[in-house]
Amino acid sequence: MPYPELHPPVRTLLGPGPSDTHPRVLQALAKGTVGHLDPYYLEVMNGLQEMLRGLFRTKNPMTMAISGTGSAGMEATVVNLIEPGDSMVVCVNGVFGGRMADVAERAGAKVIKVERPWGEVFTPADLAAALAQKPKVVGIVMAETSTGAWQPIEEISRAAHEAGALLLVDAVTALGGVPVEVDAWQIDAIYSGTQKCLSCPPGLSPVSFSPRAMEVVLGRKTKVQSWYLDVSMLANYWGQNRVYHHTGPINMTYALYEALRLVHEEGLENSWARHRANHLALRAGLAALGIRYATDESCTLPQLNAVLVPEGVDDAAVRSALLNRFGIEIGAGLGAYKGKVWRIGLMGYGSRPANVLLFLAALEQLLAEQGFKFTPGSSIAAANRKYSQKS
Amino acid sequence: MPYPELHPPVRTLLGPGPSDTHPRVLQALAKGTVGHLDPYYLEVMNGLQEMLRGLFRTKNPMTMAISGTGSAGMEATVVNLIEPGDSMVVCVNGVFGGRMADVAERAGAKVIKVERPWGEVFTPADLAAALAQKPKVVGIVMAETSTGAWQPIEEISRAAHEAGALLLVDAVTALGGVPVEVDAWQIDAIYSGTQKCLSCPPGLSPVSFSPRAMEVVLGRKTKVQSWYLDVSMLANYWGQNRVYHHTGPINMTYALYEALRLVHEEGLENSWARHRANHLALRAGLAALGIRYATDESCTLPQLNAVLVPEGVDDAAVRSALLNRFGIEIGAGLGAYKGKVWRIGLMGYGSRPANVLLFLAALEQLLAEQGFKFTPGSSIAAANRKYSQKS
Repeated sequence: MPYPELHPPVRTLLGPGPSDTHPRVLQALAKGTVGHLDPYYLEVMNGLQEMLRGLFRTKNPMTMAISGTGSAGMEATVVNLIEPGDSMVVCVNGVFGGRMADVAERAGAKVIKVERPWGEVFTPADLAAALAQKPKVVGIVMAETSTGAWQPIEEISRAAHEAGALLLVDAVTALGGVPVEVDAWQIDAIYSGTQKCLSCPPGLSPVSFSPRAMEVVLGRKTKVQSWYLDVSMLANYWGQNRVYHHTGPINMTYALYEALRLVHEEGLENSWARHRANHLALRAGLAALGIRYATDESCTLPQLNAVLVPEGVDDAAVRSALLNRFGIEIGAGLGAYKGKVWRIGLMGYGSRPANVLLFLAALEQLLAEQGFKFTPGSSIAAANRKYSQKS
Repeated sequence: MPYPELHPPVRTLLGPGPSDTHPRVLQALAKGTVGHLDPYYLEVMNGLQEMLRGLFRTKNPMTMAISGTGSAGMEATVVNLIEPGDSMVVCVNGVFGGRMADVAERAGAKVIKVERPWGEVFTPADLAAALAQKPKVVGIVMAETSTGAWQPIEEISRAAHEAGALLLVDAVTALGGVPVEVDAWQIDAIYSGTQKCLSCPPGLSPVSFSPRAMEVVLGRKTKVQSWYLDVSMLANYWGQNRVYHHTGPINMTYALYEALRLVHEEGLENSWARHRANHLALRAGLAALGIRYATDESCTLPQLNAVLVPEGVDDAAVRSALLNRFGIEIGAGLGAYKGKVWRIGLMGYGSRPANVLLFLAALEQLLAEQGFKFTPGSSIAAANRKYSQKS
């Protein structure tokens, strides 16, 4: 037998995702599979949808989980709203905005790209010229995983709607970590992922479509180019009719169900506050070492901390030692940030004081070995001071 | 807390899939999540690819698992091979052939449908007129889950290649249960699912592309319409380069890895023989009750037994009592078979003598309650006789 048993190393996942799966979610994954039309499974789907509506802060009936990762959710929202020749404004300030533009072009959209430098966010003024072209859809990333930038949505939404467009939001890294208000902000289509602030493995993509978006979908002149992601058919499986579409990913659905129960037990606002408290402690600790953020403080996501690799420090050596000696994964920089940035995620179950202290302790050790000058213990002391301030 | 804990009922899944997940696969699902670029995860991906090549009987480098269910695999194979305006022959003799035609049309193919009645299979002669139109791709379902019909592939492949076409095969329900010989039969693109004969939950789709198919993919004039399923990008993640595409579904990948280990431990030929032996016993048992198959014996899949609901017996009442009193799920008829057919799956871990006997015992009881006439115990005796003949 040349294929060894599975013995994954124990990791502390503090990168841009996946984050650590909660033990209760791992247990849920291992529960016995039932059929995808089993009355019990349909109940699980119902509960999952209700909890997702709570998480998205929406009454949208068409709220469910796509059977694929966050990128499948991106594709699902785009291809359902776009018909060939439709125009779509895509805001690009990192990898995922760029991906959305690619997805939209493949769907036949005339894409109008609006760009900002990496690490910055958009104001409605940045979009004015593009909106004057009366696009059908405006797509924007709320939590840009490649930069840690936190995009305010409300004003962009107003501007998009004033121009008559639908608003499509990437909330992959946002959901559960910071406020996402689908109804209050009038978001028309939104997608997320399970592996960020929801403490669940990757594999599903929570999505929600507003009634206005569903009208557009159901009024299309052409079929949605993807059969697998066609929301009008998925609505028949997730809705009252329960018409078989594809076989639901049963055990991953259990996992997401349990992950959503955890969020509801904690309370969504408490989850946001926890992500913020651990972020502030990490930030204080890093500041004590003189480590700066790549994003401006005004738009830094608490769950994803993109910081500049200190001068003279070997990016790859530190990441690799974190992993191999301490079992801690953090993320490398992508694209414009390659070799320059570390991405430190404090997401979902991973966002807790023990991880902040562990990370700072490990980082101090590795920086000291690289001859980086700082007061030993200063980062941990600063983080702990921040925690006591809060309490 | 209005959302109850997960306590799935214990089921014996003898429908058209999902089938019962093997306990070792459930354990694999619950192992700790690591990052999608973790050196350990890359090893798991390598092992999974090698084992999949063994299962598909191929040397194709481009053999991997799509991050979606079997229908995502269908879409992946179609959209990568088809460019708008290309012609594709699709063989339709059940639900899944029909689905493939829909997927191909959405990809912009000029679809030439060739049809056979439900429960029958195709000969090369059936395709002759369609092949004369020199299609780019011929698509066919090897194990039609809606009818239980077992389509021979080798001669169809020869005919397709003689006409200069690529051959695309749906092996969702086939793989692991009956011989699938990708290289020997010169299949150019093939997809399967995890939830049938592999004893794994639904959620991933094993696929393989021949070098000839990959040449076509890499020589496309237009981008693949799906970013998520673009095999040229997936090849960079699953290949040597390990370029991040989307976040791999880590824990489901563990599950498939363990499921493939189980097949390799048993031996693929032994798995085929086991599916056949349990099918013959079930068939003997059903024959003792006078229950007939919907498909001709010459083309009946061992892993999916589509049988005619006996006259005077209430289809839905029997299925519902099987589920509610005995925890046994079997499948209803779809489409042309609605209300007329039961689909009894003996797939993967579910294909074992204990399940054959349990099912026959439960069925006898329910048929007796409906006043159906037969010699009590006759089906179980017949199944057991068949098992002893074999040994």
